[in-house]
Amino acid sequence: MNQFSLYPAYIAIRKRTLGLIEPLSDEDCCVQSMSEASPVKWHLGHTAWFFENFILQHYEKPFKPFHEVFSHMFSSYNAEGQTEPDSKRGLFTRPSLGEIHQYCHNVDERINRVLGQADRDEILRTLTILGMNHEQQHQELILTDIKHLLSQSPLDPCYRSEARQQRQGSHAAQLPLEWHDFTEGIVEIGHQGDDFSYDNESPRHKHYLQSYRLASRLITNGEYLQFMESGGYENPKLWLSEGLDWVKANESAHPLYWRADKSGWKEFTVHGLQSLDLNLPVIHVSFYEADAFARWYSSRLPTEAEWENAAAGQPIEGCFADNNRFHPDCARRTESGLSEILQLYGDAWEWTQSSYSAYPGYSPFQPDLDKPMSQVWNEAVGEYNSRSMVNQYVLRGGSCLVPQKRIRPSFRNFLHAKTRWQVTGIRLARDLVLVN
Amino acid sequence: MNQFSLYPAYIAIRKRTLGLIEPLSDEDCCVQSMSEASPVKWHLGHTAWFFENFILQHYEKPFKPFHEVFSHMFSSYNAEGQTEPDSKRGLFTRPSLGEIHQYCHNVDERINRVLGQADRDEILRTLTILGMNHEQQHQELILTDIKHLLSQSPLDPCYRSEARQQRQGSHAAQLPLEWHDFTEGIVEIGHQGDDFSYDNESPRHKHYLQSYRLASRLITNGEYLQFMESGGYENPKLWLSEGLDWVKANESAHPLYWRADKSGWKEFTVHGLQSLDLNLPVIHVSFYEADAFARWYSSRLPTEAEWENAAAGQPIEGCFADNNRFHPDCARRTESGLSEILQLYGDAWEWTQSSYSAYPGYSPFQPDLDKPMSQVWNEAVGEYNSRSMVNQYVLRGGSCLVPQKRIRPSFRNFLHAKTRWQVTGIRLARDLVLVN
Amino acid sequence: MNQFSLYPAYIAIRKRTLGLIEPLSDEDCCVQSMSEASPVKWHLGHTAWFFENFILQHYEKPFKPFHEVFSHMFSSYNAEGQTEPDSKRGLFTRPSLGEIHQYCHNVDERINRVLGQADRDEILRTLTILGMNHEQQHQELILTDIKHLLSQSPLDPCYRSEARQQRQGSHAAQLPLEWHDFTEGIVEIGHQGDDFSYDNESPRHKHYLQSYRLASRLITNGEYLQFMESGGYENPKLWLSEGLDWVKANESAHPLYWRADKSGWKEFTVHGLQSLDLNLPVIHVSFYEADAFARWYSSRLPTEAEWENAAAGQPIEGCFADNNRFHPDCARRTESGLSEILQLYGDAWEWTQSSYSAYPGYSPFQPDLDKPMSQVWNEAVGEYNSRSMVNQYVLRGGSCLVPQKRIRPSFRNFLHAKTRWQVTGIRLARDLVLVN
Amino acid sequence: MNQFSLYPAYIAIRKRTLGLIEPLSDEDCCVQSMSEASPVKWHLGHTAWFFENFILQHYEKPFKPFHEVFSHMFSSYNAEGQTEPDSKRGLFTRPSLGEIHQYCHNVDERINRVLGQADRDEILRTLTILGMNHEQQHQELILTDIKHLLSQSPLDPCYRSEARQQRQGSHAAQLPLEWHDFTEGIVEIGHQGDDFSYDNESPRHKHYLQSYRLASRLITNGEYLQFMESGGYENPKLWLSEGLDWVKANESAHPLYWRADKSGWKEFTVHGLQSLDLNLPVIHVSFYEADAFARWYSSRLPTEAEWENAAAGQPIEGCFADNNRFHPDCARRTESGLSEILQLYGDAWEWTQSSYSAYPGYSPFQPDLDKPMSQVWNEAVGEYNSRSMVNQYVLRGGSCLVPQKRIRPSFRNFLHAKTRWQVTGIRLARDLVLVN
Repeated sequence: MNQFSLYPAYIAIRKRTLGLIEPLSDEDCCVQSMSEASPVKWHLGHTAWFFENFILQHYEKPFKPFHEVFSHMFSSYNAEGQTEPDSKRGLFTRPSLGEIHQYCHNVDERINRVLGQADRDEILRTLTILGMNHEQQHQELILTDIKHLLSQSPLDPCYRSEARQQRQGSHAAQLPLEWHDFTEGIVEIGHQGDDFSYDNESPRHKHYLQSYRLASRLITNGEYLQFMESGGYENPKLWLSEGLDWVKANESAHPLYWRADKSGWKEFTVHGLQSLDLNLPVIHVSFYEADAFARWYSSRLPTEAEWENAAAGQPIEGCFADNNRFHPDCARRTESGLSEILQLYGDAWEWTQSSYSAYPGYSPFQPDLDKPMSQVWNEAVGEYNSRSMVNQYVLRGGSCLVPQKRIRPSFRNFLHAKTRWQVTGIRLARDLVLVN
Repeated sequence: MNQFSLYPAYIAIRKRTLGLIEPLSDEDCCVQSMSEASPVKWHLGHTAWFFENFILQHYEKPFKPFHEVFSHMFSSYNAEGQTEPDSKRGLFTRPSLGEIHQYCHNVDERINRVLGQADRDEILRTLTILGMNHEQQHQELILTDIKHLLSQSPLDPCYRSEARQQRQGSHAAQLPLEWHDFTEGIVEIGHQGDDFSYDNESPRHKHYLQSYRLASRLITNGEYLQFMESGGYENPKLWLSEGLDWVKANESAHPLYWRADKSGWKEFTVHGLQSLDLNLPVIHVSFYEADAFARWYSSRLPTEAEWENAAAGQPIEGCFADNNRFHPDCARRTESGLSEILQLYGDAWEWTQSSYSAYPGYSPFQPDLDKPMSQVWNEAVGEYNSRSMVNQYVLRGGSCLVPQKRIRPSFRNFLHAKTRWQVTGIRLARDLVLVN
Repeated sequence: MNQFSLYPAYIAIRKRTLGLIEPLSDEDCCVQSMSEASPVKWHLGHTAWFFENFILQHYEKPFKPFHEVFSHMFSSYNAEGQTEPDSKRGLFTRPSLGEIHQYCHNVDERINRVLGQADRDEILRTLTILGMNHEQQHQELILTDIKHLLSQSPLDPCYRSEARQQRQGSHAAQLPLEWHDFTEGIVEIGHQGDDFSYDNESPRHKHYLQSYRLASRLITNGEYLQFMESGGYENPKLWLSEGLDWVKANESAHPLYWRADKSGWKEFTVHGLQSLDLNLPVIHVSFYEADAFARWYSSRLPTEAEWENAAAGQPIEGCFADNNRFHPDCARRTESGLSEILQLYGDAWEWTQSSYSAYPGYSPFQPDLDKPMSQVWNEAVGEYNSRSMVNQYVLRGGSCLVPQKRIRPSFRNFLHAKTRWQVTGIRLARDLVLVN
Repeated sequence: MNQFSLYPAYIAIRKRTLGLIEPLSDEDCCVQSMSEASPVKWHLGHTAWFFENFILQHYEKPFKPFHEVFSHMFSSYNAEGQTEPDSKRGLFTRPSLGEIHQYCHNVDERINRVLGQADRDEILRTLTILGMNHEQQHQELILTDIKHLLSQSPLDPCYRSEARQQRQGSHAAQLPLEWHDFTEGIVEIGHQGDDFSYDNESPRHKHYLQSYRLASRLITNGEYLQFMESGGYENPKLWLSEGLDWVKANESAHPLYWRADKSGWKEFTVHGLQSLDLNLPVIHVSFYEADAFARWYSSRLPTEAEWENAAAGQPIEGCFADNNRFHPDCARRTESGLSEILQLYGDAWEWTQSSYSAYPGYSPFQPDLDKPMSQVWNEAVGEYNSRSMVNQYVLRGGSCLVPQKRIRPSFRNFLHAKTRWQVTGIRLARDLVLVN
């Protein structure tokens, strides 16, 4: 990427963020609906803080922070223990959303100035690109968090009132679930090329895969409803022990945003409460639910290596946030005709059975830096990935809340097994036993 | 009270409520800072709901609710289990504050119409007066809840920026704490007269009081600071067992809104963070703290009968919400010169050692009603008092957040022993041993 | 009491304690079934510790403790924070029960020696009598705690296998519930005389009582079952708000030890699982349940003054621990024929509506002591009463687990409103409205 | 294995179990010191139940259970929801330990009879061997659980008073920590051969390993103490985020059984409280602590494949339970001289960075069974492994509480990351970067 193009790309992402917030009231942006979520306002302040803290603090001469207190109000970096607890984020009615808009605008101008002055500084460029990817990640969280918040109101509000487009849903006949076979052998896994990636995608390395089969599309609401109606939640043999505890403790009996009334099953979406479309992919399921469904279907979840091996050869196409519908689509033959396995990208993050851990040879990426900037780098990246490598599970492929450009075959998302408010879906795998 | 004056009184209270909210942003009004508090927006919707649910529903023909869903969003009456849990109140970003303003305005007009049509209906008048008192109670809660919310922000925001008036604080020399003696005998306790009172103040009844002494004023910040500096919080002999557990579990070491920094003790107030004024009454202390302080001072808390017996003869004057300062004043000789015991009314609610319970002969007041209205009455009043008569302690005298007119000698407030976000203070008593 | 009789009385109580433990295995004596209960072994060690710590430590020259570590293993006095947490008591499998028996025996001998040497020391005598009353209190707790423990086993074990005696139960016709009237006026409440009493029973003082009625006997299992069958637990109008929360949180639907199976209601007793005898008093109910039952019965709980005023003139007779049956009896005309109101004493502790608090003029009793012994006294008594005076409710009259001699009209027991594993029952009261 | 040898092997294991319990009192065997642990008595009843439920129920004609109620008191199989909650196990003082001994003896005789009658039945033999392995697993738990229980008593009791043997500890000079290198390539992982193994060790499969180094011995107490003294617990950069939360929530600052007093660090062992021997392996550390130590040492934990690849070629020798010392030994050259990497087996379970999951091609082993026995098999094995495959981490190599014969290179133990009361230690690994 040419250095002259960096600020336009930066400001385009910022504009996208502000566009996502536009339909929301000041009240919507202020409230935190659960401890795992953050207020929209905090997401906005935090993305600006990331640039101010990791870039302006080191490149702006002299550095003049927008507001002293913001440096810990909007920090998520807790290595020094200096931030406010996450659960207090929703209590900050001051600063107002308006003041945070000013903060963003102020940071934009200062970033523009700094980028103009130091356009050949590699570290500056790398940190800026990191910040842009960071902001895109928070765009996704803004959407998942606001969906969770709006779902709390008995008024069943819409995030956006535009009708869902016609292509979606029940008009399309449901494609049968088929299996694609992959033969055993050594494959290479991990990021390759010079484009941006997180350090957890590296190093690219050899991996031995046994023969396996991968399902041709995501599991649908209709298939999941069959699981439910056959007593899936009540049958202890289908569940991991910990999953069974989770079901009982949460009295779980359906995916997160499903609700039943006299007229049948409904699903709360960013477009408000909708009739459940049986042909759409099931979403908002926990790892436990995905695993239990797989067992019921005499299948299993894929490993992340199996998924990446299958996905590497496929075009990155699917239902992404770029279409502004923010809901998955049903499986259909792609326009390019090149996708042999459908819905690998976009639509819903796909649970894998792989616990999130370091690749062999992994070390947190450290560019060749002088001491002070090395410190900065570690903190900026330290916010990320390596400190989370325990008790989380990898998800692959992006979702309808993610812009297409953010996704790569090697991209690793990771969540706790109980997580449901992210857009999580199910793709099945099976062992392939070759009989001579 | 003449029926023609009811709507003006109603609308004056409503105007007062709206005035209290005026300095706040939509965000301030939406957030719930802890489970015991409610969002300002909910308080507003709830006061309108009270009139719509208990009055309009029965007197408006035909009854047309402003919004179907509001009837359970803004209900606090949970006998039928139909309301949303209290802890969810802060998650309702919709309806907006603006819509709730419309709701209030709509209810005002309908109440005006109903009052005009049925101005001689005694039940209607009684319910309306009950609703007005109910709204005044929520005015107090709006102030305590917003104070708690604003105290969460690292920006230490002001509710109102107007400077505190000069009369307050350290200019005045502190009056010495003196003791007023009362001799034993039968006294009468409880409400008398025809003015409005809650049923828990009745019936007026005889009570035998032993001789006692009552302190001439509230305990000051300075006196409480001495208790702290003498190791009060660390000395287990000063505390009730349950109080000691409370101290340890909460790591309590000072009143709720006190904070120490290099320049000394400060107090978060509705005017923002202020230096601690040693002459002002200590407030925001729990029953446990009040009790431990009293033991340290070789005293005890008064019973509510002792308090009422002393207060009944005193003029109702003091620092009330009417002055819009919303903070207690220091003890001073009153303008009337009639108060022998200072600060009995206003300033701070005074913890008594009396557990909240029914007076002998108490029964929930039930006017002579037809069956349906009797049901309404029970629900409207049932929101109140009799169902709380366990594990709470009585406080007397009102506070700086209460309008003067709301207070009577017989008025009984009640809170859990651990409560601190209400404006609670300390008045001491002692046994009076008469030696011949 | 003559000083020469003190050791025989001491050793008789000790023998009683050991007799209560005799039917139990080492395992039974070691386990703590919930945090409110203590292992039998701990009770035993603690009663010995009381004498060693408060008497031998000061009167034995030179003082030689049985075991250094026992002084904090068996202490309940936590003012100095040196004791083990209560919830760990059940984890001490060492020392063994046998070693604790040795501890007791050792303390007995040393007490005998000390009493023989200092038989005219008033403080020594007072402390010894205090320790004997303390031990009787723990005899009651041994029985309630072992009942709770045995109730946990699916084997439904008996504490003692002796058949219940015939006098009990359904052979007797149930006496009708009648009301005894008391007219208003000044009464005296509190301990009088020179016999032992706790300081919370003093000073005797004047109290004004309004006219009231008191039920002639305790509420029976049959009456309570009617309350249940009429939907008592499901009707929110019958419950205090906090009681309703308690019902929901604990899914309470019957008294603690009741169990339903195909053959009807059963009750777990110290004699194992028994058919529910409808004529026996209902026991093991919380304050919330007693209060709700009273409301259902258009009655209320008595105040402790009302109870004491009625009980003061009655003979102390009823079903006490002395009969070794450890279960209440049904109401019947007494042998003496002197009891006008039945079951006031023994059978079951009777919940009153009175919160536990200090009497007017109360101060912890302090004999005229030199400084060091004054300290001892405060600690020995400090284990008791005054530090518990918040959020507990008074119960009167003793129970079937209490020896007759321990009970007085002025005796005040106190428990948290949610307590059920003590033998708690219901006596009703009503206001008496005299019509001319 | 020849069928005639099965009962002697069975009874030898049972004798070993009873021998482990012998030093304990009835009280020691009854108490449950935390929810993760079980009472010794329960372990004993449970191992008998396993044989009665999975073997006798199907092979004894007619089947006559020892006691109806035992079938759910001693079951751990909760698929049908019929068992008592684990946390209640410590509340069962009845049946007594003596009765459980009778239960065991009774089961032994019936197993002997059944084995004699059906000695060629393959399923019977397989289930019996499974039961014997199951009992050996509970032998280990008996020791870890009793250690935890005894550590609760302020008396610091010994499980066995025999002096620790001289070979242990500080007499031996500490061997330096060296690195053994392994070159990348395809390896085979998983159980091979016909001996008993759990299904989670199969199928044996190919795995691609990158080059790595493995430490020559376990980390010692001395090395861990250096980590502590360098501020390891206070340095957030060394910890996984979840590990940091764990440190704060538990106020962890040292391994589980370490205690500091004036004379320095001590370690509670089955032999009572001992001075900390710096040359012995550190044990009772969580995954979080092992991971943080590794980061401090510029290393990482090995994967389970790396471990198995290194261990497969080594003799199974080390400090096992067979020596009845129940504490790890210091690293020393082995008697055989064949071990290149020390302490791989025995001493302490070694945390790996591998989350516990199914091997490729894994399916719960099901012998060729008729329908009813297939059900039995699934339940007997279902108690085990496959339902635990989430949020646990694999440990390898056995420990000083495990008999040597129970361990294989492919044996997979698995624990939650926070677990510390098992004998868990640290072996380090590093990436091996080969430079040409």
